[in-house]
Amino acid sequence: MFTFDNKLEFHNKSNDILTVGELLIDMISADYDEDFESNTYHKFFGGSPSNIAMNVKKLGINSLVASSVGKDGLGRFLINHLEKSNINTSCVQQVDYATSMVLVTKSKNSPVPIFYREADYHLDYTPELADAIKNSKIIHFSCWPISRMPVRDTIEKVIVEARKNDLLVCFDPNYHPMIWEKGEDGLDYVKSIISKVDIVKPSEDDAERLFGRDTYENQIEKFIELGAKLVIMTLGKDGAIVSNGKETIKLETLAKEVVDTTGAGDAFWSGFYTAVVKGYPIQEALKLGMAVSAYKLQYEGAVVNLPTLEIIKELYEL
Amino acid sequence: MFTFDNKLEFHNKSNDILTVGELLIDMISADYDEDFESNTYHKFFGGSPSNIAMNVKKLGINSLVASSVGKDGLGRFLINHLEKSNINTSCVQQVDYATSMVLVTKSKNSPVPIFYREADYHLDYTPELADAIKNSKIIHFSCWPISRMPVRDTIEKVIVEARKNDLLVCFDPNYHPMIWEKGEDGLDYVKSIISKVDIVKPSEDDAERLFGRDTYENQIEKFIELGAKLVIMTLGKDGAIVSNGKETIKLETLAKEVVDTTGAGDAFWSGFYTAVVKGYPIQEALKLGMAVSAYKLQYEGAVVNLPTLEIIKELYEL
Repeated sequence: MFTFDNKLEFHNKSNDILTVGELLIDMISADYDEDFESNTYHKFFGGSPSNIAMNVKKLGINSLVASSVGKDGLGRFLINHLEKSNINTSCVQQVDYATSMVLVTKSKNSPVPIFYREADYHLDYTPELADAIKNSKIIHFSCWPISRMPVRDTIEKVIVEARKNDLLVCFDPNYHPMIWEKGEDGLDYVKSIISKVDIVKPSEDDAERLFGRDTYENQIEKFIELGAKLVIMTLGKDGAIVSNGKETIKLETLAKEVVDTTGAGDAFWSGFYTAVVKGYPIQEALKLGMAVSAYKLQYEGAVVNLPTLEIIKELYEL
Repeated sequence: MFTFDNKLEFHNKSNDILTVGELLIDMISADYDEDFESNTYHKFFGGSPSNIAMNVKKLGINSLVASSVGKDGLGRFLINHLEKSNINTSCVQQVDYATSMVLVTKSKNSPVPIFYREADYHLDYTPELADAIKNSKIIHFSCWPISRMPVRDTIEKVIVEARKNDLLVCFDPNYHPMIWEKGEDGLDYVKSIISKVDIVKPSEDDAERLFGRDTYENQIEKFIELGAKLVIMTLGKDGAIVSNGKETIKLETLAKEVVDTTGAGDAFWSGFYTAVVKGYPIQEALKLGMAVSAYKLQYEGAVVNLPTLEIIKELYEL
């Protein structure tokens, strides 16, 4: 199924991609700052699942988001932002916890965020969510919703339902101990999830956190051995290496100008998803993912004003 | 002991007052806003126990703070702020949770804060804290640290140790369901704590949340019946009513100009504590509490640049 010149086959469904997980506020210091000395912070819409949902909509396919926010002003702000972006919010739950927030400094080095996780990990498995799975072609989630109870239970049910309905199941193994439940070593659990999904897209750092330091080839092999059917390992300016366990291909970056790397990984996922839904073979879809990522890198912000996939294809002469 | 013309007797201790509880960031919208529509927020030092500790220091007695913050930039900011205010931070613990934060809008109506409680309720009962109790005359805490486990256990140990060492035990019964552990009705627990303390200072709203709507006299009687030895019920612009169960006195407000009510209650506590430590009879100490509160009301902010108690006494001709 995952040979590089194959197209992925999907059942006829009303929705293309369903992303599940964190919807939150990024509260970012106004000034460059290494240790939260700044007194002024700006609030931004945040959360990779929604960013992907908004991206693919611009690129030309349908999307749905399943997330949970608080019954508070910040939750209303996030829902309004999605609605203004024409994203259906019927699967966004409002729960009795504060809307989750990540406080970050604008930093020239590696900023260390402070996580305030509340509503985001209280996503329930509702009849609406079950219906959304049945009506979708692809399901996407990251380590955020598997890092805590009770949303972890929801994701496990989501995976079972997605398998039953023959969805493509994609997982961003962005493991980090900082988001994980205190006192639990998340590594084994992340590995158990890799065995249940089709596609994973680790960065070099993700792989190192999961498996320790090793060569790219060995790291990819470890994901394949765990059961992933397609491993897309991103290497920053060195592009990406992709393996289906039998063949491995190398993708060069298409970026010429890099203004801001925030959201580049989600832009890749977005381009790739849009392309596979539109019927491009896997190898072409991977290149279109690289192109959307390169386009995003030219602009500041996690979600930029992407053109359609067809225009991106022309711009990058693919 | 709590007759109005009595002085309170204290053992000779190196520290006057130990405040225990929440130390946190107040993140306040830059603009007036009712529903977190603002995008810009300013970070402020926050937490009533520390505000009281800083106030009494300015008024002329010693203080110590027992609180827990995260091992993060916000925790370092809070500790630095205390140190700059010459507060001993040996009882401030740094724990493996994010520094607690309250997000608030600048509002002309009643703002509804969003609470991000993490580090603040992980205060441990340490040997340093036990020593601080032994070396203090007064202990003060509010509903924050009794509203969640595990810090609730710490407070229970603090009360036992304080009783053993003959401290004056003072409690701010500022009960609010929003800060309370989910799924638990905090009312019974707050009432059980009132039975273990000497002095409580409820506002009208606090009393109503605890006991339902009733006359001032009846509300005060309920606190006395539970076991409080002195009840100071604050009535905003109408001053306060104080009862020791036998006598009741009325205190008029001394405020002429009201710029900002934030921290007015803590200013009252601070003036009262400083006065009883300095040997003023209870009735005079209550008036000095009203005077410090009136002084604070003239200025913006929870902690203002208070003069010594002696200067306040002269200013208000007491």
